[in-house]
Amino acid sequence: MLDSLKRFLIGKPLKNEALSGEKYSVFMGLPILSSDAISSVAYATEEILLVLYPVVGILAYGSMLQVSSAIIGLLILITLSYRQTIENYPNGGGAYIVAKENLGLISGISAGAALSVDYTLTVAVSIAAGTAAIISAFPILEKHRVLICLVILVFIMIGNLRGITESAKIFSIPPYAFILGMVTMVIVGMVKYGVTGVVPSPPPATEVAAQSSVTIFLLLRAFSSGCSALTGVEAVSNAVPNFEEPSTKHAKTTLMLLALIVLIVFGGISVLANIYRVVPVEGKTVLSQIAESIFGKGFMYYYIQATTAIILAMAANTAYSGFPLLLSVIAREGYMPRQFAIRGDRLSYSNGIMILSMLAAILIIIFRGDTHLLIPLYAVGVFVSFTLSQSGMFMKWIRERGKGWLHKAFINGLGALVTGVAVIIIGATKFVHGAWVVIVIIPILVNIMLKIRHHYTAVAKQLKIESKELSSVDFEKDIYRNRVIVPIASVNKASIRALRYAKTISDSIAAFNIVMDDEEKEKIEKKWALLNTDIPLIIRSSPYRKVVSPLLEFIQSEEYDLKKGDIITVVIPQFSVKDWWHKLLHNHTSIFISTELLKHKHIVIATIPLRLKDDKDAIRK
Amino acid sequence: MLDSLKRFLIGKPLKNEALSGEKYSVFMGLPILSSDAISSVAYATEEILLVLYPVVGILAYGSMLQVSSAIIGLLILITLSYRQTIENYPNGGGAYIVAKENLGLISGISAGAALSVDYTLTVAVSIAAGTAAIISAFPILEKHRVLICLVILVFIMIGNLRGITESAKIFSIPPYAFILGMVTMVIVGMVKYGVTGVVPSPPPATEVAAQSSVTIFLLLRAFSSGCSALTGVEAVSNAVPNFEEPSTKHAKTTLMLLALIVLIVFGGISVLANIYRVVPVEGKTVLSQIAESIFGKGFMYYYIQATTAIILAMAANTAYSGFPLLLSVIAREGYMPRQFAIRGDRLSYSNGIMILSMLAAILIIIFRGDTHLLIPLYAVGVFVSFTLSQSGMFMKWIRERGKGWLHKAFINGLGALVTGVAVIIIGATKFVHGAWVVIVIIPILVNIMLKIRHHYTAVAKQLKIESKELSSVDFEKDIYRNRVIVPIASVNKASIRALRYAKTISDSIAAFNIVMDDEEKEKIEKKWALLNTDIPLIIRSSPYRKVVSPLLEFIQSEEYDLKKGDIITVVIPQFSVKDWWHKLLHNHTSIFISTELLKHKHIVIATIPLRLKDDKDAIRK
Repeated sequence: MLDSLKRFLIGKPLKNEALSGEKYSVFMGLPILSSDAISSVAYATEEILLVLYPVVGILAYGSMLQVSSAIIGLLILITLSYRQTIENYPNGGGAYIVAKENLGLISGISAGAALSVDYTLTVAVSIAAGTAAIISAFPILEKHRVLICLVILVFIMIGNLRGITESAKIFSIPPYAFILGMVTMVIVGMVKYGVTGVVPSPPPATEVAAQSSVTIFLLLRAFSSGCSALTGVEAVSNAVPNFEEPSTKHAKTTLMLLALIVLIVFGGISVLANIYRVVPVEGKTVLSQIAESIFGKGFMYYYIQATTAIILAMAANTAYSGFPLLLSVIAREGYMPRQFAIRGDRLSYSNGIMILSMLAAILIIIFRGDTHLLIPLYAVGVFVSFTLSQSGMFMKWIRERGKGWLHKAFINGLGALVTGVAVIIIGATKFVHGAWVVIVIIPILVNIMLKIRHHYTAVAKQLKIESKELSSVDFEKDIYRNRVIVPIASVNKASIRALRYAKTISDSIAAFNIVMDDEEKEKIEKKWALLNTDIPLIIRSSPYRKVVSPLLEFIQSEEYDLKKGDIITVVIPQFSVKDWWHKLLHNHTSIFISTELLKHKHIVIATIPLRLKDDKDAIRK
Repeated sequence: MLDSLKRFLIGKPLKNEALSGEKYSVFMGLPILSSDAISSVAYATEEILLVLYPVVGILAYGSMLQVSSAIIGLLILITLSYRQTIENYPNGGGAYIVAKENLGLISGISAGAALSVDYTLTVAVSIAAGTAAIISAFPILEKHRVLICLVILVFIMIGNLRGITESAKIFSIPPYAFILGMVTMVIVGMVKYGVTGVVPSPPPATEVAAQSSVTIFLLLRAFSSGCSALTGVEAVSNAVPNFEEPSTKHAKTTLMLLALIVLIVFGGISVLANIYRVVPVEGKTVLSQIAESIFGKGFMYYYIQATTAIILAMAANTAYSGFPLLLSVIAREGYMPRQFAIRGDRLSYSNGIMILSMLAAILIIIFRGDTHLLIPLYAVGVFVSFTLSQSGMFMKWIRERGKGWLHKAFINGLGALVTGVAVIIIGATKFVHGAWVVIVIIPILVNIMLKIRHHYTAVAKQLKIESKELSSVDFEKDIYRNRVIVPIASVNKASIRALRYAKTISDSIAAFNIVMDDEEKEKIEKKWALLNTDIPLIIRSSPYRKVVSPLLEFIQSEEYDLKKGDIITVVIPQFSVKDWWHKLLHNHTSIFISTELLKHKHIVIATIPLRLKDDKDAIRK
């Protein structure tokens, strides 16, 4: 039943060969890889205003332009820096790989941890922002905010479990549609202002007077919030091998175009927010207010809300292809549980997809789907990985000293320095608002990853057998003595079957029975006597109605005379019933007994299936 | 870790002998057995008013007295009827037993199903009403209503899992304290009215004008609601053997006293509600309004709220001793899953306790802890069991025709008739308000119970072996051929250990390995060749990365040459790690493989434990 539900939702299993190797052109790659970065503009300007406006009122607009300019400067620097990564890592230069290769293990897994946190937040923030776009258009949905977020999350999860790949052509349409809408809005907005010169005044009810002047700290806090616009810029560098040949060149072109689009759209929206004096309010995004001011509540308004919601969902989807892949790389190297390295039926890394969904759902529920509450946690992880990645590149140039190394080292070094400073700014200004969570979690994650690797190493060491030892293994010599105990509940067909099996695997057999009182004891002894066998029946009374401890006591007793090296096989019958609900009707003592006994290294459990007939057939006969 | 938490909450396991046989005197038995019945008065009057007042306004008070009188008449009849049950079932005459013995199987399990529903509702209703008493005194807690309900529920559950028995002496205090408070209130209230003659007028804001006149249907609906006052009256008849000798006499006396108390308190409160013209409002129980009118918000007010809350929690506790016991009786006869017939570590029927808590919690959450919403579901179950129990007694007299049978048959017959009519009234007037749920659930439960019994019978029939067949079982003859397959992931110490074990139990051994590609295949073949063994290594490539289907295919292949009657033992190593989190780091493929293979009746799974060392020790060496 569960299985067919799974098949319906996820689809039939796929063969390994189905793993496609479709490659992007620039035209295809740009929309697919850029949705995360481009969609950030849907909330970045609003986050800057949200910091400034309540404190300095009308002065916010001037400051916003300064902050936006700084962020655009940072964007240009990061783009130049990542161009060099693309050039040197044609097989994909994720922060994890670049940092590990050039800065060492701890830096590498720190970058991995930071990226993992970042991917999870990308999902939560993007879905929350997408929901905000929907609610801006249809305010009646406000009270179902968390539910809408979770429904979108589940859809994306199922899609990814089915194995939606980023390469699906259909995914290239919404980003272009969104970019088109944004560019149109920027142009129309500016032209309208240029022609008419007038703008609608902001709603007076929400106007806030300057409570204080603009301080450096306030500007830095606004800058931190705005940095969320830069998340996702690194996506192209991870995906170099997915481009058509010459892949490096195509990836670099894509990155440049991506940066250009972010620059135009983010810059344009900041200017529009300034012109139209949009005030951040609850339940209506800044972007939707700008759109309404420019277009009125007509077709273009709904077009912009719809493409925004879709591209934000796609940004979440980007994390769904990034996170499980990253996790699988880390897991293959032993720093994460191995289960994350296995592809599921549909060739997607299903375990990674499910854990990402779970974590994002928890974030959405805790923060009630509120973008503003999530943002302070967001940018830290991204900028930590930026810094580590660029530092890694810097060290590479310093070490290799190839052609033009000084110039290249300068760019990556400056990138590392500036993004490092950004980490400090974000951490400091957003610390109490939630950044501390990420700052605490990253080292904890690093620690866990090291512990996991340590465990796998320990296990491998215990299992490993050298080639030269192999030839000296003698299966005939030094064979264990195998003895069998068959716990029986009563003398019935199941116990006869178990005893019969025991006979085939050993000559030292004992049947074992637990009774509650003497009456029971006599009854079973009498029945046992009818059996024509020399197998001894051991009876113990158990006041706790437990089987395990009396059985272990018996094994350790002088009566049983256990020798060192003996292996004891305990034969346990287990019902195998057809209907799922029949399972509920049988005590699961056999499973419990097996688990307990397997803690003893000299005990092997042989589970013998008892196939039951259908109730009807059994009773008819 | 989980285990020590369990020990802390539930306590150490107890021996069978700890099952106490303490007997009640009348003085002890009365409070313990009556808490359910007596506590019902805390909400019964309010429920009657809630039906009448919004429709007929001030006319409600007169009608209420009529309805209350009818309910008291019913109480007297039920009491007389149950006296006869006590006399004839000195070992406890629960509705399940009486109905099953005298009316047959279906009636018996119908009574059992009705009682199960009733017990669950008793817990939910009592806790909800207790919480209402607390909230009346401290209105600030209103918004935490559901939470308070659940906290009380968890406390009661833990107490019962620890094995609180009804016989704890401390439990006799609160009912007496409650009765004392109620009787004091009735007397003071009446005296005050007699002396001063004046009563505070009801708050005008909530006064409702008569919207229509009093109809028969309205009176019947009020009667249905008020019938909740009679729940719990049957408790004494279940507990006859728990009384000191002569137990029948003591039980009968207790029942009479119980009825008398319900009569005085319920009647008194109805009169007081009439005198003081209390209007049912949200967030303040009728009982608490009466107490406030009479005593003001002083000591006596809080005393009454506190004792009410405690006795209501105790009423829930009564269900906790009744439900698991009933379930264990039914389970022992095979109509419910066997797990309910087993006592837990602390000798309480822990499975029954947990399922009761779960069901009650679901009810509380669905109905947001609102007594009024739960009441319509409540009385149906109780009155169905009353009817079945009294009908059973009636049939008994008709069949036996002993001394004075006509008189006795008349009483029980009248009891059955009247309670049967009550079932119809409650079902009809409360149908749309929720009674339909119970009317639908009872037959479904009965059906499930029959199906469960059917399954157990089918299983028993398949397992049973006649005594005469026993002596003809020959363990030496007709022995299965036992063949072994050892699936190995690679050539390591674990696989060597598994192969070594295989050697001790069979001479027909094959190792089995799954590869993804040719490279892997060559690697393992090379390593295997180093081993000095004649065991064949079977290698299969699996595009789905699955082990089970290739293995089954191999078993069915001509190459393997499986003969009818062969048993195949598949040896599977299983890591046994110490730290719980280490478990998460290993694929659970071994468990999955076992489950899948055990579906085939000719395959036995031998699980061989691999005890891993601590990580530190393993790496140090």
